[in-house]
Amino acid sequence: MTDYTPTAEDKFTFGLWTVGWNGQDVFGSASRPHLDVAHSVHKLAELGAYGITFHDNDVFAIDASDAERQAEIDKLKAALDETGLKVPMATTNLFGHPVFRDGGFTSNDREVRRYSIAKVARNIDLAAELGATTYVMWGGREGGESHAAKDIASALDRYREAVNLLGDYVTEQGYDIRFAIEPKPNEPRGDILLPTIGHALAFINSLDRPEMVGLNPEVGHEEMAGLNFASGVAQALWHGKLFHIDLNGQHGPRFDQDLRFGAGNLRGAFNLVDLLETKGYDGPRHFDFKPPRTEDEDGVWASAAGCMRNYLVLRERAKAFRADPEVKAALEASQVEELSVPTLAEGETLDDIRKATYDIEKLDHGYAFEHLDQLAMDHLLGLR
Amino acid sequence: MTDYTPTAEDKFTFGLWTVGWNGQDVFGSASRPHLDVAHSVHKLAELGAYGITFHDNDVFAIDASDAERQAEIDKLKAALDETGLKVPMATTNLFGHPVFRDGGFTSNDREVRRYSIAKVARNIDLAAELGATTYVMWGGREGGESHAAKDIASALDRYREAVNLLGDYVTEQGYDIRFAIEPKPNEPRGDILLPTIGHALAFINSLDRPEMVGLNPEVGHEEMAGLNFASGVAQALWHGKLFHIDLNGQHGPRFDQDLRFGAGNLRGAFNLVDLLETKGYDGPRHFDFKPPRTEDEDGVWASAAGCMRNYLVLRERAKAFRADPEVKAALEASQVEELSVPTLAEGETLDDIRKATYDIEKLDHGYAFEHLDQLAMDHLLGLR
Amino acid sequence: MTDYTPTAEDKFTFGLWTVGWNGQDVFGSASRPHLDVAHSVHKLAELGAYGITFHDNDVFAIDASDAERQAEIDKLKAALDETGLKVPMATTNLFGHPVFRDGGFTSNDREVRRYSIAKVARNIDLAAELGATTYVMWGGREGGESHAAKDIASALDRYREAVNLLGDYVTEQGYDIRFAIEPKPNEPRGDILLPTIGHALAFINSLDRPEMVGLNPEVGHEEMAGLNFASGVAQALWHGKLFHIDLNGQHGPRFDQDLRFGAGNLRGAFNLVDLLETKGYDGPRHFDFKPPRTEDEDGVWASAAGCMRNYLVLRERAKAFRADPEVKAALEASQVEELSVPTLAEGETLDDIRKATYDIEKLDHGYAFEHLDQLAMDHLLGLR
Amino acid sequence: MTDYTPTAEDKFTFGLWTVGWNGQDVFGSASRPHLDVAHSVHKLAELGAYGITFHDNDVFAIDASDAERQAEIDKLKAALDETGLKVPMATTNLFGHPVFRDGGFTSNDREVRRYSIAKVARNIDLAAELGATTYVMWGGREGGESHAAKDIASALDRYREAVNLLGDYVTEQGYDIRFAIEPKPNEPRGDILLPTIGHALAFINSLDRPEMVGLNPEVGHEEMAGLNFASGVAQALWHGKLFHIDLNGQHGPRFDQDLRFGAGNLRGAFNLVDLLETKGYDGPRHFDFKPPRTEDEDGVWASAAGCMRNYLVLRERAKAFRADPEVKAALEASQVEELSVPTLAEGETLDDIRKATYDIEKLDHGYAFEHLDQLAMDHLLGLR
Repeated sequence: MTDYTPTAEDKFTFGLWTVGWNGQDVFGSASRPHLDVAHSVHKLAELGAYGITFHDNDVFAIDASDAERQAEIDKLKAALDETGLKVPMATTNLFGHPVFRDGGFTSNDREVRRYSIAKVARNIDLAAELGATTYVMWGGREGGESHAAKDIASALDRYREAVNLLGDYVTEQGYDIRFAIEPKPNEPRGDILLPTIGHALAFINSLDRPEMVGLNPEVGHEEMAGLNFASGVAQALWHGKLFHIDLNGQHGPRFDQDLRFGAGNLRGAFNLVDLLETKGYDGPRHFDFKPPRTEDEDGVWASAAGCMRNYLVLRERAKAFRADPEVKAALEASQVEELSVPTLAEGETLDDIRKATYDIEKLDHGYAFEHLDQLAMDHLLGLR
Repeated sequence: MTDYTPTAEDKFTFGLWTVGWNGQDVFGSASRPHLDVAHSVHKLAELGAYGITFHDNDVFAIDASDAERQAEIDKLKAALDETGLKVPMATTNLFGHPVFRDGGFTSNDREVRRYSIAKVARNIDLAAELGATTYVMWGGREGGESHAAKDIASALDRYREAVNLLGDYVTEQGYDIRFAIEPKPNEPRGDILLPTIGHALAFINSLDRPEMVGLNPEVGHEEMAGLNFASGVAQALWHGKLFHIDLNGQHGPRFDQDLRFGAGNLRGAFNLVDLLETKGYDGPRHFDFKPPRTEDEDGVWASAAGCMRNYLVLRERAKAFRADPEVKAALEASQVEELSVPTLAEGETLDDIRKATYDIEKLDHGYAFEHLDQLAMDHLLGLR
Repeated sequence: MTDYTPTAEDKFTFGLWTVGWNGQDVFGSASRPHLDVAHSVHKLAELGAYGITFHDNDVFAIDASDAERQAEIDKLKAALDETGLKVPMATTNLFGHPVFRDGGFTSNDREVRRYSIAKVARNIDLAAELGATTYVMWGGREGGESHAAKDIASALDRYREAVNLLGDYVTEQGYDIRFAIEPKPNEPRGDILLPTIGHALAFINSLDRPEMVGLNPEVGHEEMAGLNFASGVAQALWHGKLFHIDLNGQHGPRFDQDLRFGAGNLRGAFNLVDLLETKGYDGPRHFDFKPPRTEDEDGVWASAAGCMRNYLVLRERAKAFRADPEVKAALEASQVEELSVPTLAEGETLDDIRKATYDIEKLDHGYAFEHLDQLAMDHLLGLR
Repeated sequence: MTDYTPTAEDKFTFGLWTVGWNGQDVFGSASRPHLDVAHSVHKLAELGAYGITFHDNDVFAIDASDAERQAEIDKLKAALDETGLKVPMATTNLFGHPVFRDGGFTSNDREVRRYSIAKVARNIDLAAELGATTYVMWGGREGGESHAAKDIASALDRYREAVNLLGDYVTEQGYDIRFAIEPKPNEPRGDILLPTIGHALAFINSLDRPEMVGLNPEVGHEEMAGLNFASGVAQALWHGKLFHIDLNGQHGPRFDQDLRFGAGNLRGAFNLVDLLETKGYDGPRHFDFKPPRTEDEDGVWASAAGCMRNYLVLRERAKAFRADPEVKAALEASQVEELSVPTLAEGETLDDIRKATYDIEKLDHGYAFEHLDQLAMDHLLGLR
């Protein structure tokens, strides 16, 4: 059996806030001490990660002085230098401090919106300096709990204004950075703007620079809406918008569990890995999970290692699935490839279709999808 | 108190399949006899409806001969003439017959796809003849139960191809018709393509004639994904894509209940009506519900009447809410209008924002949303 | 129109932790300062509440010295004396401190279990001293995130052991106290033991003193599982086990929203109030909600007042519904009362039923439920 | 690798209605012809099943004459004789015909209730004749769509009355039969009585002969409420009430998917099999699924075979998991066994616990659940 030890080539990345989560939730206080950032970088390097990602306030406090901020950044840089870890992505914390209680870019308070844009711009400078090429926007506080409190059209106007301004900024600065919006349906707000992959894709089309903006979908966020994550990601890929991805686990509609990748919906994880590996996604495999509050620091690293191990196993299984001649025959029997054939043949017009006659009883037949799906199951379970 | 009797000006429409549902479900057979189409038209006219809508096979059988088809159409036309009811929208049944078991436009079987497009084109002719200006596409069987059985990218290619072809057809025929896609997350397929308002909006942007295609969102379909329907509709309006709307009721993520409008999530219904009436939607208010299987024909009409009554009551309450000076003051206090003010002032640049200083402790304050939301509750309950 | 000002007769109570929630959640820090307990008591008294409830650590810190603890208790008592507010219920915090990360009564660590029981016993003494007659057990950390980590049978054994021991304790001390278990399906644990009203009812039947233990169901907790709350409460009443109730609002399966009562599922709230007022529940109407993090202290009191106002309005509407002769006729037409007639008549045996003949076509008819439900809607909306 | 070919010892059983489902749903008509019952019996025998189960109307029509009924029964018996298949369970169809539109045992119409009890009694005779020892009650139509239409207390009274009468009947006839109630939260009714394992367990405690009545929980039904199925089954076992079980697959809260076992929530399936095999359940492993409507008859048998194969694989993996010394060490490290140790030691009293002192900072530690859960994942994936 393969040794599933990750290497930098696997492009596994972790948010500093993931391993760094201290366990604070709505019902309880921290169960783990603050993790030193440099320590996390070193540990992740040991485990085989390719890089790390961060919110500004994962590294320095929101009210840090310039000197304090720089001191923390320098420590991070030193750790990156020592380990060779990359920073392919960065993002902004626009949700932790109560000033963002009604959102950042779409707060009803215009001054909060201005502060939010300034905060993002400043961290984009840092992101560029650290070599990040993707800048994620998760608008977890952009939304509301009650209808009249938020004019959605105005909120989308302001969201667009903010992203447009920041797109201009990145362009003017000459940074090699693209934005990736991360949708989520709810929590912490009752309903969040751009709740799914689809809503965010639609929004991007309204921007001044749509080509600069794509998605950072997260497994659990779509599954919180009961949606099939692999199907959503496939649509994002179809639109050319899968700029980044957040891997974790979830048990359907409920609170945001942020389980390690593989835990939760395992068949969904297999389907996702099959899609990513088959359809040519070549960005980082980024884990955005929370080691459960039950764990101490050992458990933090065990869960981080589990994320990578599970991805590697599923990758191997997905490749075997696609290579299996019996699978190929089953795909053929299920006419899966036939769907890539245009419905209208070269040279035909709609009239050819309209004027033909169809014997629908003859056209009706079984598709043998269960046989095919059981082959997928067999491969997932390592039975073939 | 107002008399909530609907009139044609209220633009209430009903699908023939709604009042005509015979009660067949997965677990049981019909509980009501087939309703004669002409009879339904007359009854809906009596109740105050403005018009009706239909799938081709609501009027004639899928295997009707041309003569049988025409005979049924003539009966429908006679009833429309007698009552003055309009047909603002029509649609195609691409889900009832087992030939569509793997979908219509996106069936793996190319011949089924060809038949589906032909079937739609033929019914578009009838829709145009009856004066319909909206043609709905609900792809309830476009999807799958297992990952490998459906290549999503190919499926979206074929979906796009079909809508493009039909857009060409409508254009060439000179019909005054626009398309409206109706998203749904699941049921009857395990996962349906274009599962939410957002996914469908994104898809539309990929079409040859995006301006011809908008949405027909349905209350229950979005709520099956736990999404806030009014917020989704607001985004559709923001994109200029609310071409039509399906009103009904649902109790969150579970099977598609198709309750009468108002039943289910009542506050959501109020929010929706407030949005539609405030933001200038002027299309039909179309009810797509199912009178519960417990009902006989009297119950069918009682539930249809209830849909309209509930809309009218909520419309009155929403208008009173918006007119109330105390509500205006509360909106002001919650800075709701301030969200329509651009974040960057005329003449400013991003630098003005970036270089400003912000005292976030001072910027942080309460938003008084609970007071505002309680005023909305009071108006919904008729207390003010 | 009625003046919906609450009085002590309405028996409205609030947890100190509800108005006292400071806004801390998984994604952000407190948005409101700590509320002084005595101040809360006075404010709630002003608003018309009947009483307050508390966890031990709402009043004093988990590591308070005896003197510190007593000082805080004395302040609370003084405020109660000044206002006349009662303490009908108390409960224990077995979830906030990380020592409870794997639960209290069912932690895998036996010493934690011992500490938990001791902590409850001590607070029962205080509850009794303050006159509480209900002691709530919400086991929010009793559960797990992964299968093998928790042996459910052992966990239920330990849960039973703990409740039995505490039942003995209350009995031996001669306290006039009954226990009320509060079910919840998930959050903060991935899956919580006794996830619904039903599971808790079943558990109670396994106890040494089942008569001492009932339920404290919460609106949002059942709705997080997509269950009909009023139906669940009706079953609890049927078993004689509705000892207490937690009123709030929720939007179906998602994170625990703890909205004010009425917000969320309004028709469900009406149904619940109708049930409580019709079926003779006479305990406190206890609000367990969280003023949204967007609010400052004014918003806290606005939301608390809204809870009570909404209850009073719904109570009035429900009474009018039940008194309406047309409703009575509709209930008759729907044969609702006929369900209270035993299926087997006095003197009959099963043989009388078995040997009868049935014409099922004749037995089949409509039930006119839609008409009845629309009458309920009309009353909820104040239209009759 | 093991050969996963089922044999009678594995005790796999199938409902005749599962393989016999013709594909009819709310949105479409049958996609497969009626399957001859004897043919199904023979095919299931070939595939390695141990037995079959049935509703009365799976075998004969609801309006069959006595002669027609007997003819169909005779055909079934012949097939059973030819194959050696057993009938460990039978049940009644109280949901298909519209006479049950408001339920069977709890219909508002008393005459429908009488008919329902008679129908069940007659089929119990047949069940006993065929050697069934479990009689399942799934009350899919027992419930409602609107609050006022159903008095829950009366409904539970009538439910109890019906089960009591039938318990008397079985006792008087001397049949070796126990009842198993099958909970479901919703669909086809808006809300169903006894919606979860818990609610049904509680109800059973109210019966005259609780010892005669247990549960037949179904994977998908609990997962439709977002509940952890293995945890619910564990509680049922703890109460001694797991009389039978329905195995299938589901993707969380949505319509009832009835996927083949293993499809859907695969980790949940592993957890369940681990529980059943570890905790000594020795009843049939009964599959209650629906071959998707896309399939022809070959697909029906492929999916049936898949159910059994998946069970056998998971059983093997679960056994290896429990036998692995590293797993044993991990369980020890996570103190899983310590939960089986009573919290109060032999000879201790509550006072020993109350008067002890606890250093909660010292008591607080990590539980290493992630390591343990990753070992479970490794075993599920066949990696160890």
